[in-house]
Amino acid sequence: MLKVSIIGSGNVAHHLIKAFAASEEIELVQIFARQKNSLIDVADNCLIITDLSLLIEADLYIIAVSDSAIGETSQKLPFKDRLVVHTSGAMELAAISERNRSGSFYPLQTFSKSRNVNMKTVPICIESQNSDDLNIIKMAAASISDRVYKMDSAQRRSLHVAAVFACNFTNHMYDIADEICAGNGIAFEIMHPLIIETASKILTLSPAEAQTGPAKRNDTVTIDRHIDFLQDTEKKKIYTLISNSISKHAKKL
Amino acid sequence: MLKVSIIGSGNVAHHLIKAFAASEEIELVQIFARQKNSLIDVADNCLIITDLSLLIEADLYIIAVSDSAIGETSQKLPFKDRLVVHTSGAMELAAISERNRSGSFYPLQTFSKSRNVNMKTVPICIESQNSDDLNIIKMAAASISDRVYKMDSAQRRSLHVAAVFACNFTNHMYDIADEICAGNGIAFEIMHPLIIETASKILTLSPAEAQTGPAKRNDTVTIDRHIDFLQDTEKKKIYTLISNSISKHAKKL
Repeated sequence: MLKVSIIGSGNVAHHLIKAFAASEEIELVQIFARQKNSLIDVADNCLIITDLSLLIEADLYIIAVSDSAIGETSQKLPFKDRLVVHTSGAMELAAISERNRSGSFYPLQTFSKSRNVNMKTVPICIESQNSDDLNIIKMAAASISDRVYKMDSAQRRSLHVAAVFACNFTNHMYDIADEICAGNGIAFEIMHPLIIETASKILTLSPAEAQTGPAKRNDTVTIDRHIDFLQDTEKKKIYTLISNSISKHAKKL
Repeated sequence: MLKVSIIGSGNVAHHLIKAFAASEEIELVQIFARQKNSLIDVADNCLIITDLSLLIEADLYIIAVSDSAIGETSQKLPFKDRLVVHTSGAMELAAISERNRSGSFYPLQTFSKSRNVNMKTVPICIESQNSDDLNIIKMAAASISDRVYKMDSAQRRSLHVAAVFACNFTNHMYDIADEICAGNGIAFEIMHPLIIETASKILTLSPAEAQTGPAKRNDTVTIDRHIDFLQDTEKKKIYTLISNSISKHAKKL
């Protein structure tokens, strides 16, 4: 069995721990968290350590901490020449101290602690410095997901930017819709079928083919009315900028 | 059986025709299209007329044409004092010529001809000038959907603006992600699980709770790197504006 230890207790760590704990191909050796109780209900209590110097031997150490903490965390590891990966979309392999062999283990998904995710469908993007290490990382990834992609740091960074648009910015569009509904006495639940269908269309149509709405039709009367309707300056700006961008794309097709 | 005729052959008309044709509570009397072949495979050929003056008696006439054509189409109807509704989110009842009784029949969904939609789950927002007409409109809506909402024109307009954010702008975020993937040799399919999960989270979390990503964490290092990465001025502007908006929202929580 492949021995894996996880360093971190945030959203990504939380979901990786659950997935590895459920995998029969993986021995989850240790989990480092600054505070034991941050992993209550997630991990077997006796696996949790709160001192990095207690880390014992494993085939793979996965650092699942915020981007800005990867460097410092990797420098504090009490060993050298072992395989250490991070889970960041934005960071290069060099973020990990060169005292160890570095790699990437980036799960492309939006994780919230309160929501279960089927890890089998989550793409995991992997990278390493040599092919032996890649095999180890691939085994670990394939033990929890059916979608493992080899990808270099430049591609991973571009994917991370794309994910910010497709996930974080999309969710903010939902948030603005929620605010508009709330301000007009409408329950946000009425938007659920529209939101699900908008996402589901993408499984069979390209986004360009799936586009609908006033900006796509270049319906300037409706666009101007909507901008008038929005009181808030920031919402007006977002509406105008994205509508212009949609209209330009539609003309190119 | 309630007698319904539909005027129009666009995306919305297309899906309403299919839904009413399948409903046992509705007699689909006639369908007006400027060109018969625009409704091939959708409607029984003998129901289609291409001349508005041939419209015969029905309980409800649904004008499903573009917003800018509603007024002119309603003026050309060869009768008076009958119940005529439009399917627009943006237009008031007064868009329909006052020679007939007016109402609204707004299905809140994104429709593309090439994609089937389960109309039972589509919210239909209805409005009328009097309660008798509302009952007729409600019967028609309830015959094809389980989610019928009475709503005045002001609420419908606000819902339409919210829908532009939650659907049209969201789809444009997918489109930008698609462009970024294509420009970096990545198949867009890798984004599918992320897009579906981002939408699905909304069924159990509020958008504010579901928000993740660098702007939510106020991770300015990653944000600046992403803006550097984006070559295109318009994408840089969109990235900056939406990230600022997310950060402000996150601070308010």
